[in-house]
This record gives sequence, C-alpha cells and structure tokens, in this order.
Amino acid sequence: MKVAILGFGTVGVGVYEMLEKCAGLEPGPVLVRPGKEDKPFKVSSMEAIVNDPSVGAVAEVMGGIEPANSYVAMALNAGKHVVTSNKALVAAHGIELAQLARDKGVSFLFSAACGGGVPFLHNLAIAAQSDEILSLGGILNGTTNFMLDAMQSEGKDYGDVLHQAQDLGYAEADPTADVSGLDALRKIMLACAVAYNKLPVDGFSREGIESITAADVSDFQSRGLTCRLITSGGPAGDTVYAYVEPVLFPANAPECSVVKNFNMAKYNGEDAGAIVLMGQGAGRYPTASAVVRDLCGLGSLEMFRPEVCKVTADNAACVHPYYVRVDADKAGRFVFSDKWADGDSVRGILEPIAVPAMHALADSVRKEGGSIFFAAMEG
Amino acid sequence: MKVAILGFGTVGVGVYEMLEKCAGLEPGPVLVRPGKEDKPFKVSSMEAIVNDPSVGAVAEVMGGIEPANSYVAMALNAGKHVVTSNKALVAAHGIELAQLARDKGVSFLFSAACGGGVPFLHNLAIAAQSDEILSLGGILNGTTNFMLDAMQSEGKDYGDVLHQAQDLGYAEADPTADVSGLDALRKIMLACAVAYNKLPVDGFSREGIESITAADVSDFQSRGLTCRLITSGGPAGDTVYAYVEPVLFPANAPECSVVKNFNMAKYNGEDAGAIVLMGQGAGRYPTASAVVRDLCGLGSLEMFRPEVCKVTADNAACVHPYYVRVDADKAGRFVFSDKWADGDSVRGILEPIAVPAMHALADSVRKEGGSIFFAAMEG
Repeated sequence: MKVAILGFGTVGVGVYEMLEKCAGLEPGPVLVRPGKEDKPFKVSSMEAIVNDPSVGAVAEVMGGIEPANSYVAMALNAGKHVVTSNKALVAAHGIELAQLARDKGVSFLFSAACGGGVPFLHNLAIAAQSDEILSLGGILNGTTNFMLDAMQSEGKDYGDVLHQAQDLGYAEADPTADVSGLDALRKIMLACAVAYNKLPVDGFSREGIESITAADVSDFQSRGLTCRLITSGGPAGDTVYAYVEPVLFPANAPECSVVKNFNMAKYNGEDAGAIVLMGQGAGRYPTASAVVRDLCGLGSLEMFRPEVCKVTADNAACVHPYYVRVDADKAGRFVFSDKWADGDSVRGILEPIAVPAMHALADSVRKEGGSIFFAAMEG
Repeated sequence: MKVAILGFGTVGVGVYEMLEKCAGLEPGPVLVRPGKEDKPFKVSSMEAIVNDPSVGAVAEVMGGIEPANSYVAMALNAGKHVVTSNKALVAAHGIELAQLARDKGVSFLFSAACGGGVPFLHNLAIAAQSDEILSLGGILNGTTNFMLDAMQSEGKDYGDVLHQAQDLGYAEADPTADVSGLDALRKIMLACAVAYNKLPVDGFSREGIESITAADVSDFQSRGLTCRLITSGGPAGDTVYAYVEPVLFPANAPECSVVKNFNMAKYNGEDAGAIVLMGQGAGRYPTASAVVRDLCGLGSLEMFRPEVCKVTADNAACVHPYYVRVDADKAGRFVFSDKWADGDSVRGILEPIAVPAMHALADSVRKEGGSIFFAAMEG
C-alpha cells in the first residue's frame, strides 16, 4: 500500500525513508508547498493525493491546525486511512476526525502525537479495552526534560540550557509551548480521551519550568531531590483531572533516571498495575517510527472511540505538599510545614494543598509582580 | 465471544474475573482435573471445549509442556484462537503451534509468557515490522529481582531473601528455574524469535544468582554498584546472541530503579531508539491482564512469523569487563585490570572478556570445587 506524506520536514523525511524499507508499505506522493516540487514524488495539490487510487493511507506530519485539519478531512472523506503526529490537531479536532474515519471505515491513529517513539497511546488504548486505568501521565516533554537534566547535572542557568536546547534542535526558536507546559498538556488531553473517553478542553492547571533558577536547583539538589516536568491525568467523578507542573522526586525514583530529552509515560491499570514506557520523545526517526508503527497496524485499533466527548477537567481533589520559593513579602499567604530563609526569598515545604489552589496562589504572587517557583513533592 | 480457560490456578482465576468485565468477551468453560468440577462452568474434558461452537478462543494458563501442548494443538485444529502464558511450551513447541494457527487462520499469541503485565512481546512484534531491532533484553525475572533488591536494600543473606520470596509467593518451592536464570533464558528465546525470526535453542551462556553472597553485595555496594539479573539478546551474523548473567550498574542507571519483583524489558530500534517497558512481571492480575490484552487483539498481530526457525546462539562477540570474586588459589586464571584481597578470596575487575569464555572460566573453578561470583560491568 502506498502512503502519501503531508509535509516533508524533519519527521516527513524520516517517514519517507522508513517506508522505503518497510514490507507491505511504500512511500507515495509527498505534499509540499507550491514551488517546492523539486522531485517527481513531490506534489503541491492535495486533490492529486485524494484522487490517487494507489494511495491507501496518508501520514500527516506538517503540523499546525490548518490546512492540516482540512487535508486530513479530505483524505478520510476519500476513504484513506490517516496517521498523524499532530497533537494540536488531534486536541482541537480529533473527535470529529475520528468520527469521520469511523463513518468511512478507515483508521485515524496518532501514536506519534504523544511520546514520540514511546508507544504510549497505542498501549493505553489496548489496556483501556480490558483494564481500568487508575491514573496516567509522566514525563511527556523531552525539551524541558533535557533542560532540567542539564541544569541539575551541569549547574547551568535556565537561559544557558534553553540556548543549548535550541542549538541541539530540541527547542524551537519560540520555545513557549514546551517550557510553559502547553505541549505536555496537549498530550495528557489525548491520553485522557484514549483512556477515559473524555477529552478535557478546559479546567486545567498548568505550570511550566519558566520560573526555575539555578539557585532553586542547587537548593533542592542539596536535599537529594530531582525536578521533572510531570503531566498527570486520571478519573475525577464524571470528568477527569489533568494538569502539568514541576515535581520533585527522591533519588531512587525511576523519574530521576530519565535524562536528556527522553520521555517516560506511565499508566496504572487496576489489573496490570503500574506500566512505565521510556524512550525518545521526539526527533526524526523516533517520531517517524511511531507513525510507521501506526501504519503497520491500520484497522486493528481505535484510539478515539465513539464515546469520546469533551469535558472540563477537575483537579480539585488532587492534593500535594509543595516545595515553594517565594518573595519574603508574599510568603504569608502560604501555609508552610517547614521553611528556611534564602536572601529576600523564603523557601519551604507547604502543607498539602489542592492543585488548583496552589496554582492560583502562584498566579496571585505573579500578578503582584512577585516571583515564585513551586513543585509538587512526590511520595 | 466465549473464551475457554485451561487451568484455574493463580492466573486462570484472574483471567476468568477479567473476562467477566471485558466488553466483547466472556468466560467460557474452564478445564480442570477430573473430579474438580465443583462449579457448572468447570469441565474436565478438552473435547467438550473444542466441540463447543460458542467457544471462539482458548486461554492456556495451566503451565507445563504436556498436556498443554496437546490441548493447544486440539484447540487450534478446531479453529479456536489460542492465547497462552506458558513460556516453556512456546519455547519448546511455539514454531509448530504458530504454523498450525496460521494454517487454521487463527491467532496464537503469548504476551504473558514474557514480562507478565509488561507488554514486551506485543510491542517488540510491532516494532520488528518496521524497525531493525539492534538489541533486546533486560530484567525479565521478578523473583530474582526481588531477591537482589532485598539483599541490597536490607543487607540480608541469599537464603533469607529466598525464604522471603517463597513466603510472599514470588518464588516456588523449587526455585531453580528462577534463580538459575532458566526462566529468564526462556523469555529471551521467545523475544529473539519475535524480533529476529530466530529461536535460539542451544549455544546459550547462563549464570543465575545462586552464587551471590551478602559479602559480594556489601563489596560492590560500597563501590556504588547495584546488581540485577539481566537477559541479553541481539543479532549475531546468521544467528543471534542470547545469554543471562548478573550485571552491575552504576547508581544512575534506570535498572537500579527497578525494585521488588518488577521487570524492565528493553529493545533498541535503529529508528525508534531505546524503548524501555517496566511493570509487574508476574502475579495474578498483571499476568491475566496480558492474556486478556492478547484476547482483545486477536487477528491483528503475528508473534511467531512463518520465517521463524531454530538456531544455535553465538555469544562469542559479546565482550564485557567483569567483576569477579574467586578463591585466591583459582585467581591465576583470570586477567584482572584491578584487584583487591578479601580474606581467602580475591576480588577485582577483569579485562574485557567474551561472555562464553567468562562462563567457561567460572565452570572450570566450580568443577574443581572452587567458589566464584561474577557479574558483567555495565557502561
């Protein structure tokens, strides 16, 4: 079967190369921008692809919402399977696209949208068929993991490790989606929809790593702790909880062994117990391998089932102690169980507090021009 | 679809309970020994199962080679899908049973035979369709991992942790298959067949944990090292390498965070990179969940492909430095790069040596009544 590829950037080239050596599949036409058709296999017309009867499936790796959404809908309407790595697209239009695929009797799969080379959504979808998923999440953003690991192992500043991540191609020129936690949040949205048939679209709590300083790292490192940006999701009554925030782990936690730009995805099944998957969360070949794995398994799995509906996340029942560094004049609004002075700041551990309340307190500090770093304490 | 269950022990009961709540599947008749039919759903005749048209699949969780092999063949001949947790059966007769399944147009799957709740073979089979698997293996025996972890974290003797493992139900009354590495070896045999279409049946090197002492643990722990029983497999010319031996890891290795009776399976794909899967490698519900996952995915995957053939493993190109503790009068046959005295023993690190040569040297010491512990040095 021929697979058309939409977009010929980092991942698209990887998918093309992998399809050339994959039994049963071969690369078909590749959609590029008009004027970029410098090889016979490159086309600039989506119509040429949907009208090509030799194309059985389409791999969408162009990114962005439009025209990706329109192109995917055209492909599905033409009866082509679609595999995509586009988490923003699936978060925004996945329910409608999955329904269209169902109507047309084809597959709509998006393993590569969450975890890169780590087969998280695939295994989650299978597990959810027969097991109750009690919780899910983990380290789902490789860029921030690289940065946190470099800050901790090399003692560098936030700005330095961000530049390093950009130089290595791990972070984009505008790194906001990664460092703000938005990328990780989109991934947990998809995971919740796969596991619970509930796609959370608002009600989130989201804290990235933009507030962390070398002094923060030095302080919690002296206490034997390691920081990771963690996404968390799970059932919450009729809806789900879904949030992203830094978390501090003791030295023996598996999360501490996740270094560089690796990901670590987890789910906890009532029957299977805790299942952890680690691997490269981004990059040409890891991401392309996830696209091609989906292409090899067309028809065998549904990631968004007919029951998937949009919900508002509810994190009110998620309660943790938090490590906090905050300006001394703003410290009074926090209930510390332990604290210590650090220049004009106060550092300490808070009494357990609900996730939305913690995030709201941090917002209140920042709205007043104050500075704060916080991270949940694991275990 | 009704699923008949062969055997109603730890895993069989778990499979029955999971099928009762799994959409699209329901428990069918359960095969027990004659005289044990104390419930209407229990039968003692395999003929009753294969002749029951409502039974679409059979879950074999009785263990042992016979009568499991005959029963599985009967089920496949009757056109029933078969899912099994029986690694000894698949290692011994998997090629023939997979061919019979292919001839009859049904599935023969055995995720639960390797890694328990960890979906290792499933993901390996999918990855092997489109990626080149450069190596595979990991911590595939939970019993020995529990014992090594307990020796290291609690400073206990080998005998004490073995009794503890037996009391907790992790080790059998005769623990030989676990502590000798045979159980782990059978798992790597299956993994090699899934990844490389080559089932190694001899030529192995296998060292378990029977020689480890509290003094060994104390010594390498003082050097910041942690011991795990590791299975390793990969391509070796026209055949594969496949061996089991203790390995010492530095403190930041992911293997060190695998505690208690957990498993950590790994494969390294040329495109996907290193993919690591962790979870509970044994126990009623983790193992049952792997059986039920296979039952939910019937028809979508082939674990043993038509090309699978038997080979002799070749470990000659696998070379490591080793940590060794050996009687002083036997130390002369080893080439140490560093060594230190320890009573009547010598301890030290060997110059890199091939796996079969190392295992043969240990055999030579033991044949002369000497004592030796060895473990490969990772990294």
